[in-house]
Amino acid sequence: MTPIRVVAFGGGHGLSASLRALRHCVPGLDLDITAVVTVGDDGGSSGRLRAERGGLPPGDLRQALVALSGDHPATRRSAALFQHRFAAAAPAPEGGVGDPLVGHAVGNLLLHGLTELLGDPVAALDHAGAMLGAVGRVLPMSRQPVGIEARVRGVDPAHPDEVRTLRGQHQVAITTGTVESLRLTPAAPAACAEAVTAVRAADWLIFGPGSWYTSVLPHLLVPGLADAIVSSPARRLVTLNLVAEKETSGLSLPDHLDTLRRYLPELKVDMVLADSTAVGDPAPVERAAESLGARLVLAPVAVTDGTPCHDPAALGAALVPVLGADR
Amino acid sequence: MTPIRVVAFGGGHGLSASLRALRHCVPGLDLDITAVVTVGDDGGSSGRLRAERGGLPPGDLRQALVALSGDHPATRRSAALFQHRFAAAAPAPEGGVGDPLVGHAVGNLLLHGLTELLGDPVAALDHAGAMLGAVGRVLPMSRQPVGIEARVRGVDPAHPDEVRTLRGQHQVAITTGTVESLRLTPAAPAACAEAVTAVRAADWLIFGPGSWYTSVLPHLLVPGLADAIVSSPARRLVTLNLVAEKETSGLSLPDHLDTLRRYLPELKVDMVLADSTAVGDPAPVERAAESLGARLVLAPVAVTDGTPCHDPAALGAALVPVLGADR
Repeated sequence: MTPIRVVAFGGGHGLSASLRALRHCVPGLDLDITAVVTVGDDGGSSGRLRAERGGLPPGDLRQALVALSGDHPATRRSAALFQHRFAAAAPAPEGGVGDPLVGHAVGNLLLHGLTELLGDPVAALDHAGAMLGAVGRVLPMSRQPVGIEARVRGVDPAHPDEVRTLRGQHQVAITTGTVESLRLTPAAPAACAEAVTAVRAADWLIFGPGSWYTSVLPHLLVPGLADAIVSSPARRLVTLNLVAEKETSGLSLPDHLDTLRRYLPELKVDMVLADSTAVGDPAPVERAAESLGARLVLAPVAVTDGTPCHDPAALGAALVPVLGADR
Repeated sequence: MTPIRVVAFGGGHGLSASLRALRHCVPGLDLDITAVVTVGDDGGSSGRLRAERGGLPPGDLRQALVALSGDHPATRRSAALFQHRFAAAAPAPEGGVGDPLVGHAVGNLLLHGLTELLGDPVAALDHAGAMLGAVGRVLPMSRQPVGIEARVRGVDPAHPDEVRTLRGQHQVAITTGTVESLRLTPAAPAACAEAVTAVRAADWLIFGPGSWYTSVLPHLLVPGLADAIVSSPARRLVTLNLVAEKETSGLSLPDHLDTLRRYLPELKVDMVLADSTAVGDPAPVERAAESLGARLVLAPVAVTDGTPCHDPAALGAALVPVLGADR
């Protein structure tokens, strides 16, 4: 039997949770996993690299690689190296002349260097995946970095009705205003061809969890990717978030689903997976799912200590019957 | 039959040539290779890391790892990544804010990060070796970086008799004056325990080729290492350089051998290997070798295009009968 080809879309922590959950489906299911990652990050180590040197922001790509990294002790150590951030060299050594590495994740520098060496971010990601014994492939949504811009109402609480344009993923991610519209710069970036191929060949496309405006919706704004998503024979699953983040304060779970249709009206969805507790009254979420053509599946997928994080094992357990249906 | 345990001492390019030559001895000989590397570098990418963040200068360690890296296409690509130096990000991206990575070798940052992560440079080198599929082990001569200082006559050609102290490996390496004496700071650094163990268990110890004052002699100035070298049951081979470098201008090949005895009077050597052409009249080299207890072996070990570099295949071919004697 051929493996089930799964493409998971996202950005940072949400995508990692999704990928770790997919790993928990193995070996019960034979999965061929591809992660497609946003390239709009402009904060932290990625933002510095992007501003100083250009190229794709590597942080979210790195997180996805690490989420898929192998279980061998050596690859686990390499994954820890990818995640390691250079500490402040304190106390400063005698004659110290500054410390430009502080805060950079080693894996970010490694991905940047690999891209420089091999001349292509996809070749770099494939090699980094091999270094980590990754059990799947990580691809950027586009070979070009993008900007994320949002028109946001009430950025300043003192002027709740004023609408401002916020530029940059970081600014959008941290606003407590209401996002009225979202766009990429450039407005229509070229999709990564390998990502398009993976989407067309997929059995399942998985959206979320993750920062909705900055990690999930951007994929729908890349025309080539949106076309492939809509026309793929794959079934489509949306995994909803557990709690609203700053950028989605005021956005209910049904609103989350509505935004998908707003930014890609042709999108049909087969399943919406949500945490039983986070949903509360399921009726509004059920209706929003139905308007996308989807059935709502409730399962306990949060960690049990009360922090708003998906538990990879629980999410994986919920995914097995969904992805394995009809096999 | 147990493998022949070889410990090769050196620093930069010379040690790499020695290690690549040893690889050419395999599979004719079954070798267990350990490289012991100087830690005095204060120039370039290593010097910046050392000045800005402390820790061992990684460049020469990286070169040795790469010289021992595996032949698989994936490990060759990882080795290329270790060697890759971040290019200048030109043209500077819009809003560019400087470029602190330029010139750093990716492998230097990776070794520095690994050491930070694992808390120990030997653990870091062992993991990096695994990442590169290395066919031997790379160890620092000391876990602490050292300074290299030399009293040098005629640093300034206008004052040929004036003796000055030059501080730092880089300054010593590039001087065209005559090195009168050499010392480390601290004067008696602790030897790397794993290197001492390897020396005590070795069948062969190999010194050179390499920058004599900055890559070969420093090993003899580490008391714990010098003790192990003198007391090891291993046989000892010195591979002479092909031409004098700046730091050894005026130092003949017999002089090279004499410096070994000067800095470690108890040192006995079994074999001296030199290039037939570079030696010219062999009689003085033969006498200097004999005064160390050694036999001179002449072989064509230089590359054939006239550049003063050892040819790894030719040097390997010359080493096979030496290392394989009595087996």
